Amino acid sequence: MSTNIFAISRGDVRFPTALAAIHDPPPTLWIKGEIDVLRAPAVAIVGSRAASPYALEVARRLGADLARRNVTVVSGTARGVDSAAHRGALEGGGITVAVFGCGVDVIYPAEHRPLAERIAERGALVSEFAPGMPPLKSNFPQRNRIISGLSLAVVIVEAAEGSGSLITADFALEQGRTVLAVPGNVLGGRNYGAHALLRDGAKLVECADDILEELPASLTQPSAGIRDLGLGIGQEKESKKMNPASQDPVLRSMDDGDAYDFDEIAERSGLDRMKLLPRLLELELAGALRRVDGGRFVRFRGPC
Amino acid sequence: MSTNIFAISRGDVRFPTALAAIHDPPPTLWIKGEIDVLRAPAVAIVGSRAASPYALEVARRLGADLARRNVTVVSGTARGVDSAAHRGALEGGGITVAVFGCGVDVIYPAEHRPLAERIAERGALVSEFAPGMPPLKSNFPQRNRIISGLSLAVVIVEAAEGSGSLITADFALEQGRTVLAVPGNVLGGRNYGAHALLRDGAKLVECADDILEELPASLTQPSAGIRDLGLGIGQEKESKKMNPASQDPVLRSMDDGDAYDFDEIAERSGLDRMKLLPRLLELELAGALRRVDGGRFVRFRGPC
Repeated sequence: MSTNIFAISRGDVRFPTALAAIHDPPPTLWIKGEIDVLRAPAVAIVGSRAASPYALEVARRLGADLARRNVTVVSGTARGVDSAAHRGALEGGGITVAVFGCGVDVIYPAEHRPLAERIAERGALVSEFAPGMPPLKSNFPQRNRIISGLSLAVVIVEAAEGSGSLITADFALEQGRTVLAVPGNVLGGRNYGAHALLRDGAKLVECADDILEELPASLTQPSAGIRDLGLGIGQEKESKKMNPASQDPVLRSMDDGDAYDFDEIAERSGLDRMKLLPRLLELELAGALRRVDGGRFVRFRGPC
Repeated sequence: MSTNIFAISRGDVRFPTALAAIHDPPPTLWIKGEIDVLRAPAVAIVGSRAASPYALEVARRLGADLARRNVTVVSGTARGVDSAAHRGALEGGGITVAVFGCGVDVIYPAEHRPLAERIAERGALVSEFAPGMPPLKSNFPQRNRIISGLSLAVVIVEAAEGSGSLITADFALEQGRTVLAVPGNVLGGRNYGAHALLRDGAKLVECADDILEELPASLTQPSAGIRDLGLGIGQEKESKKMNPASQDPVLRSMDDGDAYDFDEIAERSGLDRMKLLPRLLELELAGALRRVDGGRFVRFRGPC
């Protein structure tokens, strides 16, 4: 692969917002590919390595349909569901991000080199491990927290009991991200893990719309822009009467010119951390907030 | 078939307790087979007529496993899931009850005559329609309320949108019965109805244990008897110190020698109707309550 490898540190303005919001973000993120894709709203699709044809088909379809709706598909390039999700996203003409449990220059499994190259062309390979790190077994559970940490939601497709994707689901819950699961055949135990998640309150997924429903509409319709965010920014008539931006609890919690990190905004706004992250991403996308060095946010004064 | 057909009226002491508790029980229940089986705890299994091999296998297994645990399997002898559930129960050596949308002497579909004969040998064919009533299309939705009404819980196996088994699920909810659903393939829409129920809070079923968990343990272990019901009846040592039966809210709500119907007991005990029905069946099975003519209950004075 010819693409350059570079590193961004936690305090860097380009460090992914969602990942910066977890309690133990990696100090450094190594990236091979397009760094800007890490700013877009993302959903993880993970599941069985020894996947059934059913699971492969579902992962591929979900990946393609999310990608078509401008949602980045995050996964781990493992055999089975992970690769099917990446391939689906590429088929859908969208962006996919692969999180490695080794250096981004080490392709594992090796047979996935062509897939990794295609991912890096428009998306990104990312890792908290420095280039050259081999795929040690012990790296993978830790890697899974990055998969969920980069994502607003995690979708489990076929997970047997004790599966690695259940670890990712646990991280997602801990990180305040939405957990979703695809149901399947009850005979044979292949879906035991996914069904256990559904029993515990995970959202049931039949198609991509079930996932999109869980995301703020403004994040999946990037053309909507500032006007539709209910901020009043750019709404000239109304802006003369009042400053509707002040009605947003996040913006209201921030003094002009000061920079705040995720925890400070959570505390000052009183917003639930699970709701805060999508809202921050919305505001950032709408241009109402800006990331600054140190990974903090400043309020952007709109034209009104 | 040589078995006799007979009718019991709503006020009859032999009228099934669970069915008597719905708001619109049929005035008469026609029965061909063993009337006593209608006293046992029952679970309905219903689903698609044009069932997939998967749904047929699941229905058969659930039927067999419930029957082995002394739970009566109720269904509608339709093609597909219904028949598979009946057949499973027979294979499991247990009892099954078929609710007809025609007279119990009219077999519909006709190809199910051998199945109906086997059901009536140890279980029962029941109908609110008098002998000779043809299987009018308009009979079936109404028939479905009897399927759920006879049952503590209703399990949906494969139901597409608009399926008749969703009508049964609606009746079950209205009647305060537990609704459960088996998940399956998300491609093709076969399980759209079952998945919609799961989204709405139906319990997810992978195996018979998931259903049994929703029933009072004493009902599925008939050998347990009075001693295990926590009533103190038969517990000689403790009974000398106190009358633990008076601690049961149902028994406490009833004066000795007086007869009460379901609604009266619900009102006097303050118990949720959904919890009251299984409790009444437990107390009846344990001999702490007795049905009397008019379909009412009297408290049975234990030996203590």
